[in-house]
Amino acid sequence: MSKHYIATLLTDFGTAEGYVAAMKGAILAVCPRAQLVDISHDVPAHDILAAAMVLAQAAPHFPAGTLHVTVVDPGVGTERKILAARFGSQRFLFPDNGVITFVSESMPLGAIVSVRDPRYVAPGAASMTFHGRDILAPVAGHILNGLDIGKLGPKPDTYKTLDLPVPSRREGGLFGQVIHVDHFGNLISNISQGDISGLWPGQSGLGVVCAGRPVGPIQATYAVVEPGQPVALVNSMGLLEVGVNRGRACELLAAGVGAEIAVVESPSAAR
Amino acid sequence: MSKHYIATLLTDFGTAEGYVAAMKGAILAVCPRAQLVDISHDVPAHDILAAAMVLAQAAPHFPAGTLHVTVVDPGVGTERKILAARFGSQRFLFPDNGVITFVSESMPLGAIVSVRDPRYVAPGAASMTFHGRDILAPVAGHILNGLDIGKLGPKPDTYKTLDLPVPSRREGGLFGQVIHVDHFGNLISNISQGDISGLWPGQSGLGVVCAGRPVGPIQATYAVVEPGQPVALVNSMGLLEVGVNRGRACELLAAGVGAEIAVVESPSAAR
Amino acid sequence: MSKHYIATLLTDFGTAEGYVAAMKGAILAVCPRAQLVDISHDVPAHDILAAAMVLAQAAPHFPAGTLHVTVVDPGVGTERKILAARFGSQRFLFPDNGVITFVSESMPLGAIVSVRDPRYVAPGAASMTFHGRDILAPVAGHILNGLDIGKLGPKPDTYKTLDLPVPSRREGGLFGQVIHVDHFGNLISNISQGDISGLWPGQSGLGVVCAGRPVGPIQATYAVVEPGQPVALVNSMGLLEVGVNRGRACELLAAGVGAEIAVVESPSAAR
Repeated sequence: MSKHYIATLLTDFGTAEGYVAAMKGAILAVCPRAQLVDISHDVPAHDILAAAMVLAQAAPHFPAGTLHVTVVDPGVGTERKILAARFGSQRFLFPDNGVITFVSESMPLGAIVSVRDPRYVAPGAASMTFHGRDILAPVAGHILNGLDIGKLGPKPDTYKTLDLPVPSRREGGLFGQVIHVDHFGNLISNISQGDISGLWPGQSGLGVVCAGRPVGPIQATYAVVEPGQPVALVNSMGLLEVGVNRGRACELLAAGVGAEIAVVESPSAAR
Repeated sequence: MSKHYIATLLTDFGTAEGYVAAMKGAILAVCPRAQLVDISHDVPAHDILAAAMVLAQAAPHFPAGTLHVTVVDPGVGTERKILAARFGSQRFLFPDNGVITFVSESMPLGAIVSVRDPRYVAPGAASMTFHGRDILAPVAGHILNGLDIGKLGPKPDTYKTLDLPVPSRREGGLFGQVIHVDHFGNLISNISQGDISGLWPGQSGLGVVCAGRPVGPIQATYAVVEPGQPVALVNSMGLLEVGVNRGRACELLAAGVGAEIAVVESPSAAR
Repeated sequence: MSKHYIATLLTDFGTAEGYVAAMKGAILAVCPRAQLVDISHDVPAHDILAAAMVLAQAAPHFPAGTLHVTVVDPGVGTERKILAARFGSQRFLFPDNGVITFVSESMPLGAIVSVRDPRYVAPGAASMTFHGRDILAPVAGHILNGLDIGKLGPKPDTYKTLDLPVPSRREGGLFGQVIHVDHFGNLISNISQGDISGLWPGQSGLGVVCAGRPVGPIQATYAVVEPGQPVALVNSMGLLEVGVNRGRACELLAAGVGAEIAVVESPSAAR
């Protein structure tokens, strides 16, 4: 991979405080050449599921070797581990609380360690309330400077992933759920392009029903329907999504996380 | 111009998702040396007028050769073109939907092309819903790496600009409109310093009326009036604006986009 | 110190406009190698106290020589000075309005000047309403390029700090106030670790009362109490804070800036 010093940051710290910048300062204090890129700091506080989705939206698109530092960490100060790992060509540093779920489902695990080396993790020096600044940031700086993550600690027995609903095949169709509502009000489901093409290779004649309302066949993009109308499509992450052209599906369909999205075989049932 | 790798990003993606970072990753994957600067990602969704204003606030102040990438793109996936252009010393990459309006009014056009070269735009590989990540970002990376924008495609016949109200000279004064309300609640009009000094070279004895309320003469800065009081001034973009010292003009005057702002010749009419 | 070109920005401009990017462009136009890091742009408009707190949260953690540029500046265009200073190993550029208060309390003053050199501050060229873009940004670029801050102007007689409440020792305990509510709803007080350990070196048997409600002893981290329960701790800035594990103390205790926080000697009074 080409030599670079790119690290991303994903937190639930918000942007009104100095906490994110304190972390950036602590990374730069170890590695002044770091190129720091924000993924988001506006994940809802303590929302590990949302953070896991946002991380998977962004991480695969970075240059090989990029380090993704995630600090959505309601268990800070407890016994939860801090992990460093390689998935695909990307590197990750994160609390072991499930935030790696979608990345681990879509990118092959290369290596994983529990961060423990006392040279990088000095419990005495670290605050108990801000491991992002006092542990993850300096460790990130050392990784950017060339430290192999294998040197940070032992391989853990396992790592946490979130226990999420899976789509179920039942008479009449494939039934999944909304697992994320994005900034545009789009309803993103747990049904993947692979789920659909596995069941119906041709994909013709299918319709989508969301929160009890038929929203038509699977389309290529939002603008094929009139403004204000709902539309089903496979989104840029490869997941089935219901949106509204120039509008907000979560409002039009009064639906949110947990709402049912189904792919049905009878087009008449889906308008 | 000095050699640099600066690109700005302006979107309506919000900051709670991974979409902006996915674009940044895709730029860095082509050009790892890119220096990425956010203009804004909090433009109201699909609001091309607001994006056009924000782009013109920021772009002229960057080093010559900076590339400004705008993705406020409600027409994604339709036949709307993607354009690359030079205005003044700056370079721009944007969907052809009017977002270039204020830049094109204030900076001379150098070159413009419709981005079509299949080496940079592979329709098969691109999602139909996220051209920002799949087309504009890699094209931006190639431009930063030195690709001449003239090689990206043919010159278009024309490009879109927004059809905006223009100030009108009528008995008693010059009548314009609020076209933008900024973060501080300031009411920014379509009346320029040039409009005013063209009609009244001395500028003395003029008063401003906004939403039916006299707000006094044109001042140099906010703090010349008492806190809580309204004030008219020519802002840092050269546009007539009504603000409130340490307050919010949009609330005090109950005015927003479309409200009338007038420059009147009788100071008595303007308090 | 190692050679770098890091500058931070702290403003109340919000992120929906092009104002922050205009400042960044103006810095990069003078110093294209600048590495720009956002501290925050979401400080409440004109809130100097919040800006002072946020600056002190972040600045100490950056590499030596970092330049911190603050533009929370309700007095723009008036006679208020623009100052450049060194505190500890960090450099600062800021309007003389008290925004340096907490930095000046926790980091030793090295040098301070009033920015006046006409080569860097050209009043004729500068707008009266956007000194951030027209004065602070180019001056910052020159400092990053190597200009000594001592060359920018004369030493001022003094500089402004905010007149803040101080904790008082009275019968039964130490009584302070909430001076900041952070993004997580944590109530941050003006009582420091030093205040507490000065009075009670052992720190055992102490309890905290916030807004009239006992919240227990001083703990090490949030997660030692049950989710939803309040907890007192010394935070990552060394200040006494009342939070709620996975919740919002400002809501649970219905408290905000100005609320009383007391350290009391009788643990029975504190649950």
